[in-house]
Amino acid sequence: MIPNSRLYSFVGGSSGLWKVIEERAILGDPLPQVTNVAIRPGTAGDADNQSAWSLHGVTSNTRYVTQSEKAELAPLEPPIGRDDATLAVMIPLRKDDSWWAKTQDERREIFARSAHHENGIKALPAIARRLHHCRDLATKEPFDFITLFEFAPESLSVFETLIAELRDSEEWQYIDREYELRLERVDVLY
Amino acid sequence: MIPNSRLYSFVGGSSGLWKVIEERAILGDPLPQVTNVAIRPGTAGDADNQSAWSLHGVTSNTRYVTQSEKAELAPLEPPIGRDDATLAVMIPLRKDDSWWAKTQDERREIFARSAHHENGIKALPAIARRLHHCRDLATKEPFDFITLFEFAPESLSVFETLIAELRDSEEWQYIDREYELRLERVDVLY
Repeated sequence: MIPNSRLYSFVGGSSGLWKVIEERAILGDPLPQVTNVAIRPGTAGDADNQSAWSLHGVTSNTRYVTQSEKAELAPLEPPIGRDDATLAVMIPLRKDDSWWAKTQDERREIFARSAHHENGIKALPAIARRLHHCRDLATKEPFDFITLFEFAPESLSVFETLIAELRDSEEWQYIDREYELRLERVDVLY
Repeated sequence: MIPNSRLYSFVGGSSGLWKVIEERAILGDPLPQVTNVAIRPGTAGDADNQSAWSLHGVTSNTRYVTQSEKAELAPLEPPIGRDDATLAVMIPLRKDDSWWAKTQDERREIFARSAHHENGIKALPAIARRLHHCRDLATKEPFDFITLFEFAPESLSVFETLIAELRDSEEWQYIDREYELRLERVDVLY
């Protein structure tokens, strides 16, 4: 079996490039607490018996962004993995059945009323973001999405504003499980 | 690992409830020819060494249907598995990179110009259809989608009209691999 080239694994345990600074169960069941997270392409690390949990997701085509929004976003979006992006926040979340039963236009209207695009673009290029989809994998995953945010320490306040606006939005009313891991890159610490 | 409850396997080989009546490589590389296909929830049958190929896909939330279209479709859509639906057509297909690079509104406009909804609804309730997504699984799959159509023999001409209209549409210009397996339920044959 060849892995999907867009697959990423998030393995929580006692090793990994990212040191857990803080973790919080925002809504619903927590994950077991860990000291480190390894974020890697493919399924590397899954067999590591040091790990407490292992989550998977694939990056995919955009689902809601329009052509005009993409034209605004594309020149501003930074890549994951910038040298100075030593802080990361990993947010696995799940949306409820009523969200998934909605049609595309209903979901898109909720994104629009939630100012998803407008709030997101304010955080660029400070905050890099990679969205991973988990809901349509062959194995049942505990979350629908994993969003990874990466930024330099001086951009922490930009991230705090972004996440506060997201959580205050109509879109977030459909989230029924959310966890948050605040991470710092290990090479910065040692 | 618990399988996704929306996962289905399509296993081509020398056994399975569906007898292959005809198979055709419509575009791109063919699949190895087989005499039977087993279509099952989960990954049952994958380990069967009689099989020539094994494809997987998950059913998922709708991606393009609007609220008003859903209101028209929902009362007409028949389930998969009707007793008299003894014919099936399985169509694995892949869309090209230019399709996946488009934004949601661009893809939706192509569906609209392709009369995807109007052509589809004409075939209801004669033709049952189940769409399986393969592109965002953890393992690399050779196709992006598998569509399964099921119908009674007297509805064959309805299916022929539907598939001809689909293949003649703008949407189909983005398809770069397509295979077709015409199937008949084994309990009808023996």
